[in-house]
Amino acid sequence: MNKETQPVEELEELNEEAGCQEANGDCQCETESEVIDETVELKQQIQDLKDQLLRNAAELENFKRRMNEERVREAKYRSQAVITNIIPAIDNFERALSSTVEDENTKTFLTGFKMIHTQLLEALKQEGVEVIKAEGVAFDPTVHQAVMQEAVEGVESGMVLQELQKGYKLKDRVIRPSMVKVSE
Amino acid sequence: MNKETQPVEELEELNEEAGCQEANGDCQCETESEVIDETVELKQQIQDLKDQLLRNAAELENFKRRMNEERVREAKYRSQAVITNIIPAIDNFERALSSTVEDENTKTFLTGFKMIHTQLLEALKQEGVEVIKAEGVAFDPTVHQAVMQEAVEGVESGMVLQELQKGYKLKDRVIRPSMVKVSE
Repeated sequence: MNKETQPVEELEELNEEAGCQEANGDCQCETESEVIDETVELKQQIQDLKDQLLRNAAELENFKRRMNEERVREAKYRSQAVITNIIPAIDNFERALSSTVEDENTKTFLTGFKMIHTQLLEALKQEGVEVIKAEGVAFDPTVHQAVMQEAVEGVESGMVLQELQKGYKLKDRVIRPSMVKVSE
Repeated sequence: MNKETQPVEELEELNEEAGCQEANGDCQCETESEVIDETVELKQQIQDLKDQLLRNAAELENFKRRMNEERVREAKYRSQAVITNIIPAIDNFERALSSTVEDENTKTFLTGFKMIHTQLLEALKQEGVEVIKAEGVAFDPTVHQAVMQEAVEGVESGMVLQELQKGYKLKDRVIRPSMVKVSE
């Protein structure tokens, strides 16, 4: 708090209000003058405190807004950790399902496991997990990772020729990009 | 702001400071008196504003603490929704794995799927998911759901005889209780 920042007008106004004549040099007037000085200082203190209250209120609002945004973001991607851990198991699941099977017994088994795989992916889909589109679409570096290139006649450059490993998104966030082969 | 709450001593002190004699009824003294009244009021305002600042600071601290607690809780159980959706697929997975198989081809397949099942449960375990202990332990209504009762000779009452469906916990929270048969 700096008393010198107090506008001179206000000080003069206060002096007038208190009826203090500058020419009047007696003891009472000096005392009055002290009281007026005190008043000015007190008013400055009040202004400072009010400013502080306003600043605090603005800070609180900011804090609440930031916390809310963070919570929304955290809730949106809440399952990312567990889904990231589950994906390699799904990879193995799909590898096992893609085996070529001849005998009828094993085929029946495989059909059962295919249904379980579908149920599992459905559970993840409910949380917002989606397989990234790959084969036949244009290569997109934000969701695809090119690990091979091949020149194929009749196919324009920069197309995904083959998906080597599935990629996954959780809502709008890429959890794992698709590994792909791209046309030269 | 209630001026009446201002201590009388302070008022008197101010009067003394200003050198105002109560017996002195002249104009200057009345003006002084007004200034002193204003000073008292300003001091009360300052006190009120300071009190308000302290209350606001305490409220902010409370708010921060509550938000933090909520976020910790939310983070702890963040995967509950997706895990709850995955559990029925795991049930089916285990049902398929428990089939009796004779021919070697299918056995080999089953072994592969058993490894995938283990990998899947391991992924959930990393997130804090655990199977609730059931068979052979004392019935606990906080984690077990009794759906059958049986009197078995040599087994004391209130023991879990058989697990009919697995139960799961996410950290300390029961996501699904075990369905069990209990001894009478």
